[in-house]
Amino acid sequence: MAKKPNKLKARLPRGFVDRSAEDIRATDEMLSRIRAVYEQYGFDPVETPAFEYTDCLGKFLPDTDRPNAGVFSVQDDDEQWMSLRYDLTAPLARHVSENINEIQLPYRTYRAGWVFRNEKPGPGRFRQFMQFDADTVGAPGVQADAEMCMMMADTMEVLGIPRGQYVIRVNNRKVLDGVLDSIGLGGEDQAERRLIVLRAIDKLDKFGVEGVRLLLGEGRKDESGDFTKGAGLDDTAIDNIVAFVSGTGSPENEGVAELNAMASIFESCGYGEDRIKIDPSVVRGLEYYTGPVYEAELLFDVTNEKGEVVQFGSVGGGGRYDGLVKRFTGRDVPATGFSIGVSRLMTALKNLGKLDTSDVLAPVLVTVMDGDVEALGRYQKMAQDLRNAGIRAEMYQGNWKKFGNQLKYADRRGCPIAIIQGSDERDAGEVQIKDLIEGKRLSEEIADNVTWRESRPAQITVKEADLLTAVKSILDGQAEDRKRASEG
Amino acid sequence: MAKKPNKLKARLPRGFVDRSAEDIRATDEMLSRIRAVYEQYGFDPVETPAFEYTDCLGKFLPDTDRPNAGVFSVQDDDEQWMSLRYDLTAPLARHVSENINEIQLPYRTYRAGWVFRNEKPGPGRFRQFMQFDADTVGAPGVQADAEMCMMMADTMEVLGIPRGQYVIRVNNRKVLDGVLDSIGLGGEDQAERRLIVLRAIDKLDKFGVEGVRLLLGEGRKDESGDFTKGAGLDDTAIDNIVAFVSGTGSPENEGVAELNAMASIFESCGYGEDRIKIDPSVVRGLEYYTGPVYEAELLFDVTNEKGEVVQFGSVGGGGRYDGLVKRFTGRDVPATGFSIGVSRLMTALKNLGKLDTSDVLAPVLVTVMDGDVEALGRYQKMAQDLRNAGIRAEMYQGNWKKFGNQLKYADRRGCPIAIIQGSDERDAGEVQIKDLIEGKRLSEEIADNVTWRESRPAQITVKEADLLTAVKSILDGQAEDRKRASEG
Repeated sequence: MAKKPNKLKARLPRGFVDRSAEDIRATDEMLSRIRAVYEQYGFDPVETPAFEYTDCLGKFLPDTDRPNAGVFSVQDDDEQWMSLRYDLTAPLARHVSENINEIQLPYRTYRAGWVFRNEKPGPGRFRQFMQFDADTVGAPGVQADAEMCMMMADTMEVLGIPRGQYVIRVNNRKVLDGVLDSIGLGGEDQAERRLIVLRAIDKLDKFGVEGVRLLLGEGRKDESGDFTKGAGLDDTAIDNIVAFVSGTGSPENEGVAELNAMASIFESCGYGEDRIKIDPSVVRGLEYYTGPVYEAELLFDVTNEKGEVVQFGSVGGGGRYDGLVKRFTGRDVPATGFSIGVSRLMTALKNLGKLDTSDVLAPVLVTVMDGDVEALGRYQKMAQDLRNAGIRAEMYQGNWKKFGNQLKYADRRGCPIAIIQGSDERDAGEVQIKDLIEGKRLSEEIADNVTWRESRPAQITVKEADLLTAVKSILDGQAEDRKRASEG
Repeated sequence: MAKKPNKLKARLPRGFVDRSAEDIRATDEMLSRIRAVYEQYGFDPVETPAFEYTDCLGKFLPDTDRPNAGVFSVQDDDEQWMSLRYDLTAPLARHVSENINEIQLPYRTYRAGWVFRNEKPGPGRFRQFMQFDADTVGAPGVQADAEMCMMMADTMEVLGIPRGQYVIRVNNRKVLDGVLDSIGLGGEDQAERRLIVLRAIDKLDKFGVEGVRLLLGEGRKDESGDFTKGAGLDDTAIDNIVAFVSGTGSPENEGVAELNAMASIFESCGYGEDRIKIDPSVVRGLEYYTGPVYEAELLFDVTNEKGEVVQFGSVGGGGRYDGLVKRFTGRDVPATGFSIGVSRLMTALKNLGKLDTSDVLAPVLVTVMDGDVEALGRYQKMAQDLRNAGIRAEMYQGNWKKFGNQLKYADRRGCPIAIIQGSDERDAGEVQIKDLIEGKRLSEEIADNVTWRESRPAQITVKEADLLTAVKSILDGQAEDRKRASEG
């Protein structure tokens, strides 16, 4: 006999996830608060598509040394390679370059969008995730970088993160470049080794000074036994870098002057060191930064997947990238901008209890007691009347014959009210209204000492003409209950 | 000598576009109005990622006969093929199947998202575009399809499309299946030929009856000379189908009974034939529909790219797809839903003048007269003070030395006000405020007969402490001007 054909297995590729209603609503709420800050700062939206030509994106991805690794690429009909964007900065540089004659510089823009990384997924590490970027293109002075830092600080506070629980840390690549020069890592031919050093320093938070020393030297073996090859520096060079990132070394160069200018602007605008702080350990692991770099860090403790209590850490960052547009146009178009990791920031806000979407009420359920066409029209009409009165409502669309399933559905869905009309009620021109919240309370026999709570009946019968008024009145009562409960 | 390296050309792959601030704002506004309707109907958001395993998506793409054509696919590390979703229905079926034990059926959900088609792009035809879907999964009866049609009608009206300028057209695949059976096109082995017939009928709007006859017969050559092979039916079969789609044939079967039931529900709920209409010519070009199919069509005239005046036509549609979840679960999970083409609908609303985002005001510009750090801090502080007072503002971030460029920038950007403080004003503790709207009006010497317009001065000088009050007062005056101008 022929084998029964296998059913198709419903599954997602690794590193991709579905988003729940709660997550979508929380993200939308968060994005709209961030957007309001960026708009207030004079930024306007602009968006680019998911695909770019691979050569336009360039090879700026951190933690990826193989060419074309880390990105999803397909070959077009005309044999050109296209890739899904891995960040929102490289596409913006392409957009500005392509429209350089129409765009009014300086160009303040923001955009939220999905980016894709063809990497090994891990806990909290996805192959598709959302970034929210803001950039000023055509802005040569560090006053633009300073403004970015202040905007990040304002964004943290608008999201409800209390002052003292976040800090924007600022450094300048030119300062570090001075140190690297002094240990013989200047020049184009040392670019790759410089990048290894940058990434090593970027791991200071994660691995501590000793871990960074290993990564600057021969290399580091992690707990799972995986070995990361180091930069191969000698001890003197390592000492120099460690002194620098610890803030005990203090080179004098253009980078330091720029940091001083930024610090002065922060002070003029009333942003103290509790909000924005110069910090020599910030490097950002991307090769394309050319000046100030900055990072938004959350300071409260969380428990990580290993059960350790750690600071929440970075939720976004950026810096000055004066060379990206020049790749296309050949002319200097200095720019600065930053990117927020949307999922990561949302995780942080959930930890802080700052995202509440519980104000979305489940619909009123119009139950179905009779499946003939005339009755279905009548039930659907009730749902439509409720909707037209501004009340979220639905008619039960499953198999109506098991009435118990309808009430179970209403319960699991959290419906506040069920409407019931059987043939008896129909004949009498009446309809039953079940207060499912009150009903639940009564059925759970909660010891209720709260004297303000009106004893609403769990079920009433009203004339059809009074349906809307009765439903509204019950919903108002439930809303009052919620309000008092949250206040008490 | 070495050749100078070529500059990289900034360009997008064909069929992909950037989105302007105006488009983004208009789309967001439109989506939020649609979302409000869906929420009112009891639908909740759920979203899936861009990638799915290729086998999970299935081969349901219209106008594509080659396997895997029409989609963007990449092979994962483990050699499984993944594809970018080409619609939002197949991924929803996967999502429901994967979570069938946790999901409470019937499951009402909606989602907006980008979909991708690896096809030849053309005018108005992109390789990445946005769809906005709503589906009820686990709903066996046509009352669910009827509700979808009413929700589409309500959506059109919420978007400002007047009654009479849209219609939801409804048909049932089972009716057509009866006709196809009668001409020998029933059964699994005729599936491909049936699909050709469906697509041919779907082109009725575009090519007329004669064009459809050709596509049902030997084939049709278009104006460019491209030949589309037809279904190869004989004249009698073609006559039968044409009679059916013209509404002159009237088979009696389950499909007709379902359409009658839907019509009865529309009538009960007060949705007349001017809003929702049974129409035998609707087929929808997708193989997976199993029952009612429906389409939202806009009836007003537009001029197409050939200069012809045509009806705007379809902006979305859908139908019942009872087999999609069964592919995974093996059990019957009947479902119905529809998809709106977001860009296409937005084009329609623009044509109708229904999308206005002109209420977004450009920022107040704080100009830079002096580039030392102390002055930059002062200018930035003014911008921050304005922002904190709820006024959209920015400091000029370009090269400040050419003051004319700053005013040119303010003009092109549409800034309502420029703030100026040179060293004289600074010494006097004062600041100049230029009303750029009034200034523009004066400089253009508009003959102004409108007596209500106050003659605001184009420029004033105020004490630093009075900056916010003065700016607010000018902005209020401008808002009043706009209001009166739009009323007059």
